[in-house]
Amino acid sequence: MALEVDLLAKNDELAAANRRWLAERGIVALNLMSSPGSGKTTLLERTVRELGLPCAVLEGDQETVVDAERIRAAGARAVQINTGAGCHLDADMVARGVATLAPEPGSLLFVENVGNLVCPALFDLGEAARVVIMSVTEGADKPLKYPHMFRTADLVLLSKVDLLPYVDFDVAAWVDGARRARPGVEVLEVCATRGDGMADWYAWLRARAEAKAV
Amino acid sequence: MALEVDLLAKNDELAAANRRWLAERGIVALNLMSSPGSGKTTLLERTVRELGLPCAVLEGDQETVVDAERIRAAGARAVQINTGAGCHLDADMVARGVATLAPEPGSLLFVENVGNLVCPALFDLGEAARVVIMSVTEGADKPLKYPHMFRTADLVLLSKVDLLPYVDFDVAAWVDGARRARPGVEVLEVCATRGDGMADWYAWLRARAEAKAV
Repeated sequence: MALEVDLLAKNDELAAANRRWLAERGIVALNLMSSPGSGKTTLLERTVRELGLPCAVLEGDQETVVDAERIRAAGARAVQINTGAGCHLDADMVARGVATLAPEPGSLLFVENVGNLVCPALFDLGEAARVVIMSVTEGADKPLKYPHMFRTADLVLLSKVDLLPYVDFDVAAWVDGARRARPGVEVLEVCATRGDGMADWYAWLRARAEAKAV
Repeated sequence: MALEVDLLAKNDELAAANRRWLAERGIVALNLMSSPGSGKTTLLERTVRELGLPCAVLEGDQETVVDAERIRAAGARAVQINTGAGCHLDADMVARGVATLAPEPGSLLFVENVGNLVCPALFDLGEAARVVIMSVTEGADKPLKYPHMFRTADLVLLSKVDLLPYVDFDVAAWVDGARRARPGVEVLEVCATRGDGMADWYAWLRARAEAKAV
């Protein structure tokens, strides 16, 4: 347990260094966390195409570079970080990834974490805000069962709302669960393929980008 | 890294002890692993009702006891293990859970691991077989991106096939990915709410239960 505390303390130091480096360049970093298959990459593809602000993306996965290729095809810089057996990104991986990615000053930096609703919650990457994404197919009870991920969220996105007619998912119960873990947290319902809620998501991103400039 | 190896070696010892304890009682333990929300608990509820063999369930989640309550309502013994911030079950948790659960000799013991497609793969629990579950909403690329989980699977279930008409999911590409990680692995397509493929799943379970008796 002492070892785990040391590991996290070391990570927090590196995260603080990332945060300073990013702030000096006016780069707003967002840590996107979810289970595999919640639709993070599809959300980012559309965001990169439509947002109208400079974006760059760090992609975390155990293996493959397919997500970075998808983001590049959508028109943004992207670097893939493969964690092998690792279950989350850490601040050191992000520091090295950012050095390769070289995001433009003043840009939004999306960090798409490894698909995992558990471990990434513990590791600060130096982000300005945390966005937790969950799809309607995952079940409304998940914020209660996996509260650590929701506890530090600055925004929670409910994705794939186009599938709501076909699944047994109680949106109100889910919102209640998310806000029990994180009182008052902002929640948006989105569908990146059909476009629902994307304007609200872009408004939230623009507000974060402007807040940084103040 | 040496510490991680020690931790896994200690876990493997405890898993071997679990395996002996279970074998002496003719109990066949199955380790069910998936992301949160793939439908493990719904699958088990229906299995408990329909299989016609004695079943018991260990439920792993970070928090709440709702899954154990659901299984008990379906008619089987169940014990909930809460891992707190922990991201997987380990052999020691299973040993303690089994001591409380006291599954009948000759029964099937389902261990529903913490919802996480990454970390549980590393930890042997003393199971007779590993079942990896993935729903059609998670995307056909996931076996390639998260191969560790698929590499030691004895059976892979593709769940929620009732949603196939509403999602962009290439079943053949997904099977190909799963078999790249685990050559020749048996794959079943199921829907626990509508009933698709459940007969095949029960046949697989009966075959495992009979194989134990030989």
